[in-house]
Amino acid sequence: MSTPTLFNVAVVGATGAVGEQILKQLAARNFPIKELKLLSSARSAGTKIEFKGQTYTVEEATPDSFKGVEIALFSAGGDVSKALIPHAIERGAVCIDNTNAYRMDPGTPLVVPEVNIDKVAEHKGVIANPNCSTIQMVAALKPLYDRFGISRIIVSTYQAVSGAGARAIDEMLRQSKEVLAGGDPKPDILPVGSLPVKHQIAFNAIPQIDKFQDNGFTLEEMKMIRETKKIMGDETLEVTATCVRIPVVYGHSESVYVELKQDFDVAEVKTLLAGAPGLVLQDDPDSQLYPLATDAAGKNEVFVGRVRRDLSNPRALNMWIVSDNLLKGAAWNAVQIAEHIAASRA
Amino acid sequence: MSTPTLFNVAVVGATGAVGEQILKQLAARNFPIKELKLLSSARSAGTKIEFKGQTYTVEEATPDSFKGVEIALFSAGGDVSKALIPHAIERGAVCIDNTNAYRMDPGTPLVVPEVNIDKVAEHKGVIANPNCSTIQMVAALKPLYDRFGISRIIVSTYQAVSGAGARAIDEMLRQSKEVLAGGDPKPDILPVGSLPVKHQIAFNAIPQIDKFQDNGFTLEEMKMIRETKKIMGDETLEVTATCVRIPVVYGHSESVYVELKQDFDVAEVKTLLAGAPGLVLQDDPDSQLYPLATDAAGKNEVFVGRVRRDLSNPRALNMWIVSDNLLKGAAWNAVQIAEHIAASRA
Repeated sequence: MSTPTLFNVAVVGATGAVGEQILKQLAARNFPIKELKLLSSARSAGTKIEFKGQTYTVEEATPDSFKGVEIALFSAGGDVSKALIPHAIERGAVCIDNTNAYRMDPGTPLVVPEVNIDKVAEHKGVIANPNCSTIQMVAALKPLYDRFGISRIIVSTYQAVSGAGARAIDEMLRQSKEVLAGGDPKPDILPVGSLPVKHQIAFNAIPQIDKFQDNGFTLEEMKMIRETKKIMGDETLEVTATCVRIPVVYGHSESVYVELKQDFDVAEVKTLLAGAPGLVLQDDPDSQLYPLATDAAGKNEVFVGRVRRDLSNPRALNMWIVSDNLLKGAAWNAVQIAEHIAASRA
Repeated sequence: MSTPTLFNVAVVGATGAVGEQILKQLAARNFPIKELKLLSSARSAGTKIEFKGQTYTVEEATPDSFKGVEIALFSAGGDVSKALIPHAIERGAVCIDNTNAYRMDPGTPLVVPEVNIDKVAEHKGVIANPNCSTIQMVAALKPLYDRFGISRIIVSTYQAVSGAGARAIDEMLRQSKEVLAGGDPKPDILPVGSLPVKHQIAFNAIPQIDKFQDNGFTLEEMKMIRETKKIMGDETLEVTATCVRIPVVYGHSESVYVELKQDFDVAEVKTLLAGAPGLVLQDDPDSQLYPLATDAAGKNEVFVGRVRRDLSNPRALNMWIVSDNLLKGAAWNAVQIAEHIAASRA
């Protein structure tokens, strides 16, 4: 029996909502860790975190934190990634970045393992983890892309507040309590913490996630558009997105219209989806079975349902795609990439 | 000075969520009422209701209730409309029906005043009020249809629980309290009261409104598809809908992708929308201004924003349309039709 190869692993942003889920995934998957370093901003340094029965003290992330680190998982915001990833690479680490910092960098692979795991091999020290709303959509569409080709995607999202961090969850729950008590809640964080205007999220739908771009789309919408093309490796793919925050804690839902390049049979589509890696088909109108955010929360899979041929365009399909935005949408996708790197070096 | 012509008016379903709003609208608009009859099922008969300082006792609706009634507004469910409207017509009443009973009947006008008020003249005793989610969409799209032509509409909805009645509101609020208290709420009504499977609506998104049809679409989705074509008077219009219930009390939101038949200028589109009857343009990304359900609640207008040219199809627009589903989506649209009838007889 051979000894498994073990790795020195760093988690940057270990005290955040995604960092917490990355640690859970590493533990649950029994990731082959030799030494684990938990890193954060100076503000959160000193925090104690349990991992597999051992207590770790979070340290401030600095360039020298990455000495000896072989795999580093970043989820501490784009600025931290931009500042520290070059130093981590210099010190020999392979970085898996969960922020927007490197996603559209032409030299950086943007990876959803079910779609383009082969791209990991092309990395120059950093592999980008896509945006949550993109990951679940491309994972669900990949089997259809391979079998029929896809010409166009029109998506409207129903995104959970956890995508905006732990403080947005707290705000939504606080506002909900205030409304239920007959009060008029003061919005404080959403839609975008760094922008001046705030809107109530409790019992509301906010059609803004991240900042507006000059073309009238939000950055979240542009992420879905650009990242989908890059991950699918197809710049001819036409993608439109409208991204909306709704009062859900965990789990993004997506209403997706997709035009295929070939005729298709709906039964074959369902069979393809049901058999695809990482996907679960939940589609039975007779028993009112379809994916729900509350069911997907806490699970690693992408759930697909409401699959039906469009009535106005026989080459188009409508579907409903749901996944936990902190898991497949972030932590689990990152740990999948880390497992692939570990396996290729074992 | 001439005396205004007054009318004998009946409100059927006076104790329901929509009936209540119809009475409020009739009072606010100072509708020219001679005698007002409040009707309901036997169960609610005897209920006392205030209207303009007078107390009315709700009576059970029977065929003979409509003797002498000139205008009858129905919102007591499709079965009641089917059973009683023929009797009301026989007794000389013009009926404005807020249910699904007559909407797709070829001989019945389906009217959104901003779109096709001229169709009222063709009635044979009943004018149908469209489905809430359809009304706000066609009201917003009509100016674009007239100016540029529309070839295709793809809509995903974010619908309030009040569309499923007062009991659905109560359920959503109760479930929210239970979740906030750490409990696991038992769903009881939604998605469809008469179907066996129930789903949690609090902090969730349910992609089912009304029953599934054989084609995999729900009845709500088919209403949007069929009614839009009928109201626009254009069977060539291609319409796709995905209808989703979210935890909002009042106000449906809609993410709408629309393909126009001609080139357009986005600034002209915004000017058209801002100047159209019944519409309010709320569209300024710089100040994070766009329609919100919580702002639209209690207002009669349809609010439009997030208007932007599609990046993948220069002939297409994306927009966000919000309105109070009980007002423009039901009571206000019905009272607008009643006002038109009254004016044409004055």
